[in-house]
Formats: sequence, structure tokens, C-alpha cells
Amino acid sequence: MRYTASLSAILCCLFVNSASAEAPKPSFPLSPTEILEAAPATVWRDLEPENLMVMTLTGGKTVVIYLAPEFAPAHVGNIRLLAQTGWFSGSKIVRVQDNYVTQWGRTEEEAKLPAGIVKPTPAEYDSPGLGHGFKPIPYGDAYAKKVGFLHSWPVATDNKAHWLIHCYGMVAVGRDMAPDTGTGQELYTVIGHAPRHLDRNLAVVGRIISGMEFMTALPRGTGPLGFYEDPAQQTEIVKVGLVSDMAEADRPRYQILDTDTATFDQFVHARANRGGPFFNLAAGGVDVCNSMPPVRLKP
Amino acid sequence: MRYTASLSAILCCLFVNSASAEAPKPSFPLSPTEILEAAPATVWRDLEPENLMVMTLTGGKTVVIYLAPEFAPAHVGNIRLLAQTGWFSGSKIVRVQDNYVTQWGRTEEEAKLPAGIVKPTPAEYDSPGLGHGFKPIPYGDAYAKKVGFLHSWPVATDNKAHWLIHCYGMVAVGRDMAPDTGTGQELYTVIGHAPRHLDRNLAVVGRIISGMEFMTALPRGTGPLGFYEDPAQQTEIVKVGLVSDMAEADRPRYQILDTDTATFDQFVHARANRGGPFFNLAAGGVDVCNSMPPVRLKP
Repeated sequence: MRYTASLSAILCCLFVNSASAEAPKPSFPLSPTEILEAAPATVWRDLEPENLMVMTLTGGKTVVIYLAPEFAPAHVGNIRLLAQTGWFSGSKIVRVQDNYVTQWGRTEEEAKLPAGIVKPTPAEYDSPGLGHGFKPIPYGDAYAKKVGFLHSWPVATDNKAHWLIHCYGMVAVGRDMAPDTGTGQELYTVIGHAPRHLDRNLAVVGRIISGMEFMTALPRGTGPLGFYEDPAQQTEIVKVGLVSDMAEADRPRYQILDTDTATFDQFVHARANRGGPFFNLAAGGVDVCNSMPPVRLKP
Repeated sequence: MRYTASLSAILCCLFVNSASAEAPKPSFPLSPTEILEAAPATVWRDLEPENLMVMTLTGGKTVVIYLAPEFAPAHVGNIRLLAQTGWFSGSKIVRVQDNYVTQWGRTEEEAKLPAGIVKPTPAEYDSPGLGHGFKPIPYGDAYAKKVGFLHSWPVATDNKAHWLIHCYGMVAVGRDMAPDTGTGQELYTVIGHAPRHLDRNLAVVGRIISGMEFMTALPRGTGPLGFYEDPAQQTEIVKVGLVSDMAEADRPRYQILDTDTATFDQFVHARANRGGPFFNLAAGGVDVCNSMPPVRLKP
């Protein structure tokens, strides 16, 4: 059965364990999945309810965004306010550009912004220095001197500043020409090969940790830059809210692999050095955007 | 109008010229688009009809694949034979795994392979040396000593061998555990951040140059590795054929930017050093998979 074989053929993914109980113990190093399975519960960090935003699309599809206030406090403040005032309800996914971004939101003409929204100044594209917990990825990068993870977020640094980077699934704030014009009313997520030239030019504010497939499996827009020409193609955003505003019993609970752990080091090493019966040759390196710490529902 | 502003906000794309005739001439360096517009016709190379494969999906959606026989002659030989014998007609898109691959084809149980299909040995993952025309991309890479383009194809090299790499939109051959088991009856294309750990492990045979959006805007499969659990979700492949087998008048004519030109050097430099009124800061580098030479319909 070729399809069955194909399951192992391009075996790569986390959380898929193809080993059966009957199979002899392989002599290969642990795979990324096996490393996670063997790790203690302490390597998983609970995500804070106030940093989790749930976006419900038409048809009950749910997208969960993990916000990064430690990197972009003013932008995240705006986004929380827009969520808590119900401002996003009735807004739309307006743009899907292949190998680039899915963008959603609406204009002030369509819905007046609530009081309290600020124009973030400075623009929050980067932060000074590098605090405790930076975990470098020791392989080459085309865009920055050094890349890695800080508190489980993908970052780059020139040793003077550090900044969140545009990996697949990261969420950032659309803006006009002036650097401080992004209010949070228009957001986008990366749906292709990481457009890292946008780093330090637009404010990255979070990461989609669930429901990414609902943002990617959408018709591409046929207008300039992938905007939908036909409004009927737009997907409606029914509501957006913070998990911290939900009743305790209703809250989804997520955890992320803490990048400041030996387990994460092993995970990255295994991603860079694929073993097992399928691989002929390990690259000996891995891109930062292919090393993102996994997220799981709290067991 | 924020939407209008947003058009320039994430302005990045080829083939979109936002400059109006009334606007004052900007003092910025030429953008990648402007470089292409200013280039002579000679920097564009015609794609050979025998290397162009047209795949028609249900609903008349058309996907065009540019084949690379110079890198994988046996695999491309198989694929041409499968196309010319009509073997792909009635096969299906069976797998869509988010941020990874879309895979299509079928089993030998479903359709007997035509005579002449070979098991490529050696497996055609790489080729010795580096011939004339290698254009290095002079920025860091996480996976290989050196990356760049050879005859307009994205490649990596360790100076002893060179190989095609798994950039977004590249097409490769699924296989079983043994390296020589990929016949070409199952193909996949990359729909996410380049899974470069697959380089030298699976045979890359081409690139989707038109219709990529029909391979990406598909529901993600919910089975292991993104295989569709419900066959009703599979997209049918109505037919696959070579452009060289079409009547002259019906043939689509494509051209690719020749990477062995000064125009391509300028293009890559401009991609690495974004200018214009929108960008605060240029990265000074660009990933090889974000430097792919553009393809156009022959004017």
C-alpha cells in the first residue's frame, strides 16, 4: 500500500508516532516527537489567559492568537481594547495573498475606534538589549546577525536590540506610511515562506497557536496584493474576545514548550539532525522559523 | 482610506507598480519590480515546451509545472511518461498538510503503471560539482554551506555536490523507505516555510509556475500527516499533459528571469535592501527561497 508507505515517506511532523508496540526498538537518536514525549511536565509553561485571544469566524471556526505584550505593549493594549469592546465583530478577512499574508480588520469609516486607542510611539518594532533566557539557534540566517528564542518567542538580534520575527503563523499589525500608524485594527498573519524583510518594519504582536488552517485554506484574492475584489469572498469575523474574560470553566488552556530548557535544546538539535530509517542525510542545521516551540492543550 | 493605504503598507510584491504618473519621481533606489521593468528582453529565457506540464483540476483550474530534467533526468522521464500515457487522469490530491506539503497521485493498485517506468538509481537527490552559471546568494543559510541559483533553479552546494532545494512551490517526488522507490506517481509541492531538511532526501523535480493558489487554498486534511480522511475532500486531477504535445497555437509560453545576468544580481540586491517610503530599515540580506527568479507569460 503506497499510501500507507507514504505516511512514513515524508514523516516529519510533531505529535505523530508511527512506531508500533511490536516494532523492534530502533537504534536511531530520539526524534523531536520522542524528545517531547520523554520530557517532564515542567518544560511546558502555561499561557496566560490575558494573552490569549479567541477569534470566531463564520461557521464556528475558531482561531486562537497568543499575544506578546512584553514585545509590543502599546499595540497589544490596543488589540485587547478592540477585543474587549467588541470592535472586531463584523469585521472581515479582506486579503489573502499567496505565499505572503492573510489580513483582517476594517476601516474607521466602517466602525469608529473606541476611546483609548493609541498610535504607538515609538513604533515597537524592536526592544533594546537582550534579557535573560535568550536561546540562540546556532545556524546561519540570511537576515540577522543572530536568531533564536526569547521566552518561547522567535527573535533576531544585532546585539544592540532584539525583535520578534515574521515566521509562519506570526501575527503583526498593518500600518500606513508613518511608522506609528498601526492601531491594531488591521492585523495579518504569515501564510508562506517567512517574509523576514518585514522584521523591524511592522510590529509583530503574537502567534496563531490554533486554527491556523482556517486562515490559510482560503481563496487567494485576485486584486492587487491579494485583496478580495468581490466582497462575497471575505470571511466574516463573528467575534473576538480574550480568554481572561471567559468564565473559568469555559477557558481553553494551552501550554508552550519553554525554550529556556534542555528539552528545547534537544528538540532543536533533533530538528537539525533528522535521523530514522527514512532520512539519507541530515542537514546539520535548521532555520529559526522551522524550530518554533510547539504548543499543546494542557493535559 | 485605510485599505488604500494598506495597499502600500505591505507593499512587497512583484508586478505591482503603485507609482502614479502624477507622483514626483522618488529618490529611492529601484525596487525589484522597477528593475524588472527596466531590463532588456534578453534577460528572460523561454521555457522549453517539453519541460512544461499542465495539470487540469476539477472546475477547469490549471496548474503549470516547470520540470528540471537536468537535475533529475530519470524522475522527469517517468513523470513525462505518466503524463503522456494519461496515467494521472482521475488521480487525486490526497494530502494537504498545513505549513508543509500538498501531495497528489495514486497507488499502483488504483492504476497500473505503464511500461517504461523505472526506479531511479541512483536516487537523483544531488549532482556532482557545480557547472558554469552558479549564482551564489551571499547571505547566511541554516542548511548548507552555500546557496544560490543554477540555470534559474534554487540550489545548495557543499562544493562537492549541488542539489535542488525545497523552496515554496517546488515539486518533488514522494517515496517509500528505500531511496529509489519514488517513481513519480506521487508528487508533492511545498506550501509553507521551506522544509529544507528534505533536501537530498527526496528528489526535487520542478517548480509550480502558475496556479499555485489552487494547490494552497485547499482544506487541510485531518488525518495523520494531513491526508484526507474523507475521500470527498480530495480534488480530482482531470488530466495532465506536456505543452510539447499541444498544438503550437494552444501552447502557453512562459519565460523565466535568467539568473546568470546582471539584472538578477540587481533584483536580489534590491530584495535584500528594501527601500522606498514605507521601509524603516533594510535587512541587508534575503533568504534564497525569497529570491526566486520570477516567471512571466511571454509578452
